Amino acid sequence: MYSFRNDYSEGAHPRVLQALTDTNAVQTVGYGMDPCCREAADTIRRLCAAPDADIQFFVGGTQVNLVTIAAFLQPYEAVICAHTGHIHVHETGAVEATGHKICAVESPDGKLTPGLVESVLAAHNGTEHMVLPRLVYLSDTTEVGTVYTKAELTALRRCCAAHGLLLYLDGARLGSALTSPANDLTLPDLAELTDGFTIGGTKNGALFGEALVLPRSLPHLRWHMKQRGAILAKGRLLGVQFQALLTDGLYFNLARHANEMALRLRDGMEALGIPFPVPSPSNQQFPVLPNGTVERLQALGYEFEIDHPVDAGHTCIRLVTSWATPESAVENFLRDLAAISG
Amino acid sequence: MYSFRNDYSEGAHPRVLQALTDTNAVQTVGYGMDPCCREAADTIRRLCAAPDADIQFFVGGTQVNLVTIAAFLQPYEAVICAHTGHIHVHETGAVEATGHKICAVESPDGKLTPGLVESVLAAHNGTEHMVLPRLVYLSDTTEVGTVYTKAELTALRRCCAAHGLLLYLDGARLGSALTSPANDLTLPDLAELTDGFTIGGTKNGALFGEALVLPRSLPHLRWHMKQRGAILAKGRLLGVQFQALLTDGLYFNLARHANEMALRLRDGMEALGIPFPVPSPSNQQFPVLPNGTVERLQALGYEFEIDHPVDAGHTCIRLVTSWATPESAVENFLRDLAAISG
Amino acid sequence: MYSFRNDYSEGAHPRVLQALTDTNAVQTVGYGMDPCCREAADTIRRLCAAPDADIQFFVGGTQVNLVTIAAFLQPYEAVICAHTGHIHVHETGAVEATGHKICAVESPDGKLTPGLVESVLAAHNGTEHMVLPRLVYLSDTTEVGTVYTKAELTALRRCCAAHGLLLYLDGARLGSALTSPANDLTLPDLAELTDGFTIGGTKNGALFGEALVLPRSLPHLRWHMKQRGAILAKGRLLGVQFQALLTDGLYFNLARHANEMALRLRDGMEALGIPFPVPSPSNQQFPVLPNGTVERLQALGYEFEIDHPVDAGHTCIRLVTSWATPESAVENFLRDLAAISG
Amino acid sequence: MYSFRNDYSEGAHPRVLQALTDTNAVQTVGYGMDPCCREAADTIRRLCAAPDADIQFFVGGTQVNLVTIAAFLQPYEAVICAHTGHIHVHETGAVEATGHKICAVESPDGKLTPGLVESVLAAHNGTEHMVLPRLVYLSDTTEVGTVYTKAELTALRRCCAAHGLLLYLDGARLGSALTSPANDLTLPDLAELTDGFTIGGTKNGALFGEALVLPRSLPHLRWHMKQRGAILAKGRLLGVQFQALLTDGLYFNLARHANEMALRLRDGMEALGIPFPVPSPSNQQFPVLPNGTVERLQALGYEFEIDHPVDAGHTCIRLVTSWATPESAVENFLRDLAAISG
Repeated sequence: MYSFRNDYSEGAHPRVLQALTDTNAVQTVGYGMDPCCREAADTIRRLCAAPDADIQFFVGGTQVNLVTIAAFLQPYEAVICAHTGHIHVHETGAVEATGHKICAVESPDGKLTPGLVESVLAAHNGTEHMVLPRLVYLSDTTEVGTVYTKAELTALRRCCAAHGLLLYLDGARLGSALTSPANDLTLPDLAELTDGFTIGGTKNGALFGEALVLPRSLPHLRWHMKQRGAILAKGRLLGVQFQALLTDGLYFNLARHANEMALRLRDGMEALGIPFPVPSPSNQQFPVLPNGTVERLQALGYEFEIDHPVDAGHTCIRLVTSWATPESAVENFLRDLAAISG
Repeated sequence: MYSFRNDYSEGAHPRVLQALTDTNAVQTVGYGMDPCCREAADTIRRLCAAPDADIQFFVGGTQVNLVTIAAFLQPYEAVICAHTGHIHVHETGAVEATGHKICAVESPDGKLTPGLVESVLAAHNGTEHMVLPRLVYLSDTTEVGTVYTKAELTALRRCCAAHGLLLYLDGARLGSALTSPANDLTLPDLAELTDGFTIGGTKNGALFGEALVLPRSLPHLRWHMKQRGAILAKGRLLGVQFQALLTDGLYFNLARHANEMALRLRDGMEALGIPFPVPSPSNQQFPVLPNGTVERLQALGYEFEIDHPVDAGHTCIRLVTSWATPESAVENFLRDLAAISG
Repeated sequence: MYSFRNDYSEGAHPRVLQALTDTNAVQTVGYGMDPCCREAADTIRRLCAAPDADIQFFVGGTQVNLVTIAAFLQPYEAVICAHTGHIHVHETGAVEATGHKICAVESPDGKLTPGLVESVLAAHNGTEHMVLPRLVYLSDTTEVGTVYTKAELTALRRCCAAHGLLLYLDGARLGSALTSPANDLTLPDLAELTDGFTIGGTKNGALFGEALVLPRSLPHLRWHMKQRGAILAKGRLLGVQFQALLTDGLYFNLARHANEMALRLRDGMEALGIPFPVPSPSNQQFPVLPNGTVERLQALGYEFEIDHPVDAGHTCIRLVTSWATPESAVENFLRDLAAISG
Repeated sequence: MYSFRNDYSEGAHPRVLQALTDTNAVQTVGYGMDPCCREAADTIRRLCAAPDADIQFFVGGTQVNLVTIAAFLQPYEAVICAHTGHIHVHETGAVEATGHKICAVESPDGKLTPGLVESVLAAHNGTEHMVLPRLVYLSDTTEVGTVYTKAELTALRRCCAAHGLLLYLDGARLGSALTSPANDLTLPDLAELTDGFTIGGTKNGALFGEALVLPRSLPHLRWHMKQRGAILAKGRLLGVQFQALLTDGLYFNLARHANEMALRLRDGMEALGIPFPVPSPSNQQFPVLPNGTVERLQALGYEFEIDHPVDAGHTCIRLVTSWATPESAVENFLRDLAAISG
């Protein structure tokens, strides 16, 4: 019937595809040195109120994370990360493969706090016998759907400043975060409060693409990129897509739609008495269902990820919506679920 | 006027773009586990007469080279490569960044021979004080436009077998190689004679994409890929493009056109008395021009790479044609060049 | 007065130094290919009842750990380790610097159990999006002084066999472990139950040196060693020292003395009412003292490490004894402590 | 009879061994933070007239090379090195294993010149598609026995300054270099002209040990050392040995003796008409002998390395002398050789 498996099940939003078609025959230089990338970078700088920011475009999320983190760090420096962090769990040790340790810390809601950051620092004695924690990795939305408030991010910024730490925010789902009802952050806030963050395109309307925003440029970043195979030959494809997404607020409108579909799912399921132990105000929802219900939904053709078993009779699943999720898919799902549960 | 700078100045061939548009709204699973990738992989296996081959799709050439070479080798093993090899010169130390040494050897025409391979082996004593050369890296076409014959590749295969070496062929410009007048190799030959080779899409009609063909699969290759950020979330984009390219011989027709445009450039320039010290039967041509001629061509708006200065008065330039090069661009260039030279 | 800071505060036991002096003028080949290393390796094989074992000698503990673990693993494979594990805490990310992730798990007493190992496995889904946990790292004694029983190690061996895991035991303090009153393991047990373990010389009478015992040899291990700078030019120094240590039971006698000194410290302090929250039957003791007592001991000239603050008024310190600790140092310390506490 | 295989066939000079014996029972802190290392470092700073230099002690040559080079470089930076350079040929890819490319250049005598350095720079275009050559690696003596003059090293320093390059000198055989009749360099010259150099102990009287002299300290070098397993637990052993070697000129006297033995070998062999194609004024000599002569010397029990076959009938061998080579060994060898050749 419909797949709520993730937010990259389809291709691109039609306006993005149209922009690729419109520019297809033009000749440009390669590797992102073209006018399309310059235009998109200018747009991002303007939206971020960060006229001096360096903007680089990457094809994927693991790629931008591993390149940027490796570029920020010296060999003996480490990353502080929530235990749910994407780089810690779902990137096959990509950061460690560049030589850096990740110091993971348990977090109840996928978010870091100054207290959690300082608990990692307290376990390190500053001598040459231990790594030096140096970069704090956040994701917004987090891997469990939660979002940071401006107060929370400001507190982390102050904590980082006090301890000489860098702050990097993985925005693979930044559109969903910034348009969540729980959000009060803006792009200019992120440019002011972080040392680097990404604007995820892959999960919000692009064929692929993550824009990296560095308020202060990193020397020789493009050498790091090339060495890791992270410069796209026809780099303009990234510029064209981001420019299309960031024109007339398309990026935010798409994310807002994804959130609305997710919250409608949540509200509908809560009305059926289904619990959501970790509340999420964004496009990933984690309900706990009886195992039989899970099986009957699957039998009807619905697709979604099994997050984890909760107890002998219940399973936490993950439902993800996107810019492409039609209202009818949500309504059908809720109707079928009501029928199963009734 | 026209850019002969490289063969990735435009987007995709219209049939590739159309295939992306046609499949845009379909939901599939991610990471290349989808029906489009399966179909394209089946097509490649059929064209290669290699029913057991493992086929994986990558976004770019540096990416596929670094991942595959790192997956083939143990930490103390090294690569044998011509001194012009792309991995040795133009990938920012990507192979070394995975920990492996490249043993480069001077080659007059960008090609390796059993004699050159054995000269590298002879310089290594097989003890733990030296790296173990283990993989031979070829490119076809080479970085200077030359192509391998079946006899040459067969001799290299025998050399590798005799010395326990792996043979990997970088086919970023494989279309141009296989449709060159100097070629007598086929895809099934490559599947029989190498341990791995790539079919380059980026430089022959795709938006991006390199297909890796492994006649015998490498254990856990996809873990290597993910760890290096080399699995595309919407992996189907690669399958869709390769399936379009490999339908009705489009891939070979596009490459044949590129070669024809290049050879027409070469023949026209030779008729003007311009020398080509390293003869190339493929889509890259390396003429030597008087410096003044180079400047006047640039002043007319032609774009191309400066390969290297030859002497005080002459420069070797690189002219690259592609599937998208119109005949008119070639004719205009030759006409303008004749006027300058006349 | 005396330093209980660690068990490598002095040089070598006189018999070790004498052996170095006796062989000083002999010419041998380098890199550990000499008769002294062969003799010591034969001795170790005999003591381990492992006639086919590969024995290699390393200068230090971090070195042997990083080389061996990197040699055991493919790039996408990870290490399972207690959160107190030396490689996780005190080796400056040496394992990660070779590209491998460490999956640390909380352990109450520094020891791993099948349950803890399986909890790590359960958090990994076996797909290419996560690392593959592949090697279990133990230390015996552990970093908190505890030791494994034969039943415990056998259970871990079975767990590893069931899940296709390698078992590696860091024996930097193996002498203390094997002579502890809590121990029932032997060298032959270790050769049978692990895939590799070390016999630590540095902390038990040698100037330096760790012997690696591999019941089944690892291909090309010496290439890994050389590449990491871990082959000593005058490798025979390691063979000479280990042969001296393993002659007439010297190694075990030294360790037994260290344990006796530690247990006398423990018993004497317990008689004064001082608590040891984590009981240790080996040469590291972790008493909790009032802060004032700590300061007065330091003022008297005693040296020891501060392990961690316990509460506002108490500190856990680490006292380490060695083969070189004189009984008088223990008696003086206990007498001074009694005077302070009285 | 006697081994001219290398200069690390014996243990330590008796005064070094005595110093280790004298200090054996003293308790010190570990890891090279002890008074012995401080004293030796002070001595080295004084001898180098470099009061602000950072001095660190390492166990071996591959270790100090790989740690220091990795600490000097960013990931995309490369090393310039003669094709005979130890790091390029005989360290099993240790530098590449830290991620860095080595750009080797043919050198007729094992030495680099500004011209050779600039030929490497000329092959790199300064863009992100190529590595950035950043550090020049020299060895003195070189791997073929030659030594640098002050004029040569000054020219290289100027070349490095002009191009923003670092200059690192591997002094594994620095004693032999500085006492060679062809030498006019001093330790203060090296401290002034390089960014880092080593004083080799292993091949000149120590059990082991290389002292690294950094005229300007490298931030966090000790973190790099620890991460690579390159901090010795009983670090004082290195300080004790270097202090003994540098007292009363022992280090230079030992090297001078080694050179005298080598030059006597050379002069005696030249008197027999034996050619030395690459002249060496230091403790390694490379004569070319008839194959039959080589075999008869071996049959007499002389040991040496075969460097390379020269033609069907002749072989280049390597003879190495050391502080421990007795005059009688040289005389016997020359007498036996005369008998064979006569």
